[in-house]
Amino acid sequence: MNFRAEIDIMPHKELLDPQGKAVAHGLHNLSFDGVQDVRVGRHISIKLSAKDKSEATQQVEDACKKLLANAIMEGYSFELIEE
Amino acid sequence: MNFRAEIDIMPHKELLDPQGKAVAHGLHNLSFDGVQDVRVGRHISIKLSAKDKSEATQQVEDACKKLLANAIMEGYSFELIEE
Repeated sequence: MNFRAEIDIMPHKELLDPQGKAVAHGLHNLSFDGVQDVRVGRHISIKLSAKDKSEATQQVEDACKKLLANAIMEGYSFELIEE
Repeated sequence: MNFRAEIDIMPHKELLDPQGKAVAHGLHNLSFDGVQDVRVGRHISIKLSAKDKSEATQQVEDACKKLLANAIMEGYSFELIEE
């Protein structure tokens, strides 16, 4: 079975996010006055094959923990879509 | 009204994505053999206030076009959540 995992990796809420602050500043300079807070992370889209959805979920969890996210600074969440 | 926009900015499908290729290679080295393709982009979360949902949608569209996404290389999609 083929799956697509759509993964969001974001800096933890407790941490300062300098990239997000820079983007917020840029938006204010462009007169986006309604903008209150910005956080910038990564979005990773992975196509993978696995024998079922639970194996695919486990693979994506492992990939996030072992390579994709730095658990000290980042949290991750993902959605798995069957293709 | 307060909204949160969850924006995904991804390299266009036609373009080579060296960062994605590097991640795919790393996953293969870690024995994630089911992984077929990886694409890496950005995820941006913006808290903003606007008078209604259509104004908020317009603001986020404008922000993507003017600052967040490089239309030549990237596409964007977003979801707007009322808070």
